Amino acid sequence: MQEPALVLYSDSSPNGFKITIALEVLGLPYRLVHVDIDRGEHRQADFLALNPAGRIPVLVDHSAGVVLFESAAILLYLAQRSGQLLEQAAQPRWATITWLMYHSASVGPVLGQRVHFECFEAIANPAAQKRYRSLSEDAFGVLDQHLASHLWLAGEAYSIADIAHFAWLHIAQIVGFDFTAYRHLTRWYRQVQMRPAVQRGIRLPAPATGP
Amino acid sequence: MQEPALVLYSDSSPNGFKITIALEVLGLPYRLVHVDIDRGEHRQADFLALNPAGRIPVLVDHSAGVVLFESAAILLYLAQRSGQLLEQAAQPRWATITWLMYHSASVGPVLGQRVHFECFEAIANPAAQKRYRSLSEDAFGVLDQHLASHLWLAGEAYSIADIAHFAWLHIAQIVGFDFTAYRHLTRWYRQVQMRPAVQRGIRLPAPATGP
Ligand SMILES: N[C@@H](CCC(=O)N[C@@H](CS)C(=O)NCC(=O)O)C(=O)O
Ligand SMILES: N[C@@H](CCC(=O)N[C@@H](CS)C(=O)NCC(=O)O)C(=O)O
Repeated sequence: MQEPALVLYSDSSPNGFKITIALEVLGLPYRLVHVDIDRGEHRQADFLALNPAGRIPVLVDHSAGVVLFESAAILLYLAQRSGQLLEQAAQPRWATITWLMYHSASVGPVLGQRVHFECFEAIANPAAQKRYRSLSEDAFGVLDQHLASHLWLAGEAYSIADIAHFAWLHIAQIVGFDFTAYRHLTRWYRQVQMRPAVQRGIRLPAPATGP
Repeated sequence: MQEPALVLYSDSSPNGFKITIALEVLGLPYRLVHVDIDRGEHRQADFLALNPAGRIPVLVDHSAGVVLFESAAILLYLAQRSGQLLEQAAQPRWATITWLMYHSASVGPVLGQRVHFECFEAIANPAAQKRYRSLSEDAFGVLDQHLASHLWLAGEAYSIADIAHFAWLHIAQIVGFDFTAYRHLTRWYRQVQMRPAVQRGIRLPAPATGP
């Protein structure tokens, strides 16, 4: 059997799900390598040679000799390689990229800090908890308002911007960051969640995080 | 006189400098609108209509009917529009995008939180200060190690990845986040800093932040 050109290094976690979902949507053959963060595998020399920042996901495309890290870079790459999930026309294309960047620079990092201070910090830090709760509520509000008049984040078509936001909101929902009061965001969330490729993506690599 | 197609809404701040620098490098005509954050102009309805998240920079390209926010999205757009600062060949192209994404998702947000807790939080929060100092040192280390064997972040050519990282490190340096111990990072920083377009970009809009 031939080794697929694409190899994804990932774990069961928000930034990893973005890529497992995208690969499942696209139906591209790939090999999945489970980098177990709990066991420190992301700090081993062979993985650091791929991503010196020691984080998943990493995608290697052996057919192009390309090694990528950062989930947003990988999503852009898969969209370009497949010609899918990112429209060609200027307006929807740049709306997709804008909302993808909003996710990766302004939403993902805020949710990540909120998870840290609410779930992992040994000594409670109420001021930091309050800060990241408030910043994530701001982000939910921005998304909700936008989705009040848009079916998907970039408008008419499901895209890499939806996949990126969904992957993190899936974890937000598992750890109990309630966003049900944002009804347009919730409508959109359910729309993404019911897609079969999404259901497959959030279970990879097994064992899955959360229900 | 004809109104230029490009209008940049910005303030004298790290994410704004990315775009003033890029526009100065490219020599594209643009109109600069100063959105004064200290005066709350980023919260006014006309600005929120461009970016519902209420943040600078925003770029409007009237010739394409495109409105963009998020500095990384704007840098990608300007690179595509001009055919500059982002190589075409797969390897340097995706290295540029990877390091640009590393900046916007993993370095900018960390420096932003460090600035907040070290410079702006009314009640000192030593645990949060320690966290963001440590995360920013990790990022300086990753950049330093990479730049030990690369002239520019994406390899042979100066790119939007260099511009993005530089803009934030310029502010880091102004507020006293010392990275001189990272000598490859410092070598690269000086190399970027001496470029005339960079010197123009960090002074826009006037009055400039820092020396
Ligand atoms: N901005 C990066 C973040 C990557 C990231 O933080 N990945 C997490 C898992 S979701 C990780 O590898 N954590 C291990 C660590 O930071 O030590 C991206 O979007 O890919
Ligand atoms: N991820 C965004 C961040 C933009 C951002 O935070 N801009 C700051 C100035 S550097 C701002 O507008 N701050 C005002 C605020 O957050 O209220 C980007 O890269 O453009």
